[in-house]
Amino acid sequence: MTQVAHPHWIAVDWGTSHLRAFAMGPGGEVLARARSGDGMGGLLRDDFEPALLRLIEPWLGAGVVPVLACGMVGAKQGWHEAPYVTTPCKPGEAAPITPTTRDPRLALHILPGVRQNRPADVMRGEETQVAGVIAEQPQFDGVLCLPGTHSKWIHISAAEIVSFQTAMTGEMFALLSGQSVLRHSVSGDALDHDAFDSAISETLSRPERLAQALFGIRAQSLLHGQSAAQARGRLSGLLIGAELAATRPYWLGQQVLVGGAVDLVALYARALAAQGVPVQTRDAEFLTLAGLCLAWKSLSESRH
Amino acid sequence: MTQVAHPHWIAVDWGTSHLRAFAMGPGGEVLARARSGDGMGGLLRDDFEPALLRLIEPWLGAGVVPVLACGMVGAKQGWHEAPYVTTPCKPGEAAPITPTTRDPRLALHILPGVRQNRPADVMRGEETQVAGVIAEQPQFDGVLCLPGTHSKWIHISAAEIVSFQTAMTGEMFALLSGQSVLRHSVSGDALDHDAFDSAISETLSRPERLAQALFGIRAQSLLHGQSAAQARGRLSGLLIGAELAATRPYWLGQQVLVGGAVDLVALYARALAAQGVPVQTRDAEFLTLAGLCLAWKSLSESRH
Repeated sequence: MTQVAHPHWIAVDWGTSHLRAFAMGPGGEVLARARSGDGMGGLLRDDFEPALLRLIEPWLGAGVVPVLACGMVGAKQGWHEAPYVTTPCKPGEAAPITPTTRDPRLALHILPGVRQNRPADVMRGEETQVAGVIAEQPQFDGVLCLPGTHSKWIHISAAEIVSFQTAMTGEMFALLSGQSVLRHSVSGDALDHDAFDSAISETLSRPERLAQALFGIRAQSLLHGQSAAQARGRLSGLLIGAELAATRPYWLGQQVLVGGAVDLVALYARALAAQGVPVQTRDAEFLTLAGLCLAWKSLSESRH
Repeated sequence: MTQVAHPHWIAVDWGTSHLRAFAMGPGGEVLARARSGDGMGGLLRDDFEPALLRLIEPWLGAGVVPVLACGMVGAKQGWHEAPYVTTPCKPGEAAPITPTTRDPRLALHILPGVRQNRPADVMRGEETQVAGVIAEQPQFDGVLCLPGTHSKWIHISAAEIVSFQTAMTGEMFALLSGQSVLRHSVSGDALDHDAFDSAISETLSRPERLAQALFGIRAQSLLHGQSAAQARGRLSGLLIGAELAATRPYWLGQQVLVGGAVDLVALYARALAAQGVPVQTRDAEFLTLAGLCLAWKSLSESRH
């Protein structure tokens, strides 16, 4: 007997570098999951449908199955553009676009991203994690922090995205640790927490020194035998510290929920706790799935 | 009749990405110049002598010619390590190391770099440009700014390097404009000066907003049709502004001399002038050659 599921619908989280699909049962339970590296960044328009079918073909039967997707799949360079909705907005209730697919077994829905006009900012995918927070905590009034390549800080109130802000901290860390002169100093995966804590505190109190402090990591290794773990902790702390300095109005005196990968969430929670900020944490996939379920519910109700 | 020079000595500027050699006459005049892409970064230890010979072979006669080199050629990963001298120090007077070469026609001298213990910082090559400033203006009392991959700010007084500071602005600009998500917004070479000026002023007054402002460049292009030249001006202004914020104690109320490539010098001079700082400018090669000539003079005198 095979393990093939016949899902009620299929949830899809399709970002720049990944594609994740979930076969969903009628009560919101996950029957099966699948993932691949076919992110939006590596696909041309005609590649999207085959990439999705490679992943979900085993779940398909003779009938039509609804597919509900969020993320960069809806960007201008994605499969089909799902125009942004504008803040303030209710992320769980935005209507998806419903483009036609070549394979008649798919009923495709792509959720829109969110734009903020001033200061200009955009998100695609994170709004679905906001919906996940609202699904779990409908009365949540505070800030959702989603650290990553492009970290998002999102003010949520009355089940709405009020405003948000992006910092490209993860991308800066990858470029500086992997390709700049600092790569000679920060090799390996170990990260010294004392060095991290000091760098957070330094950058929050003297953010104007960042440009000098970064090269100082290399000099400290050359002259004073700083270890790779200390250097890595310091680089991480300087960049996350710069992000916290830029987002201070978002977290100061707020209730903050941090969602994402376990290691990264732990670093942000540590940095925020040191500033006296109460922090809850959630896994990123948990939030995305909860958000897709809320959007599915909203979509099902609108069709009846 | 060939144009081959028979130099009195050979001046060499050997950085991470370039190698430049100058055939020098007895009065400090340049008889010939040559350059290649054989920078230190691409060479193993045994590659240095052949790389140099490829460039200067046409200038060599039967006798021994002194070669005086500055820059990354003296780093730990270079040809031979020339240990740092420590600040405060007189850059024109530091004794070079004199390693043996395989080719008996070369009498090699490599100038040391400079280290500062607290805050930890290092330079290799820029100390020779400081010597160039001192050769031209022995009474110079102020700051030398050398913008580039790793910009240096150097406090000079009484013909000494008093202290200095490094910002990796050029490397950050290259990584962010060439490889981050911002590459989609800043394509081309055009740079809008109004956008540059605003970004300088914004970052100097609110340096803590940098992390947010960087991603804002992408969002402003997506939502409000910002041009590539505006985006490029803004990225340049944010990063140079962050450097100016970190180096404020170096330029505030000081006489500043900016040395480097023409376009970059013009941007820094523009930014500093807007802050009311009086600025002189010099070409980088002029300063390096003047510094190598001063070091040659010091070396010649010490041998008599």
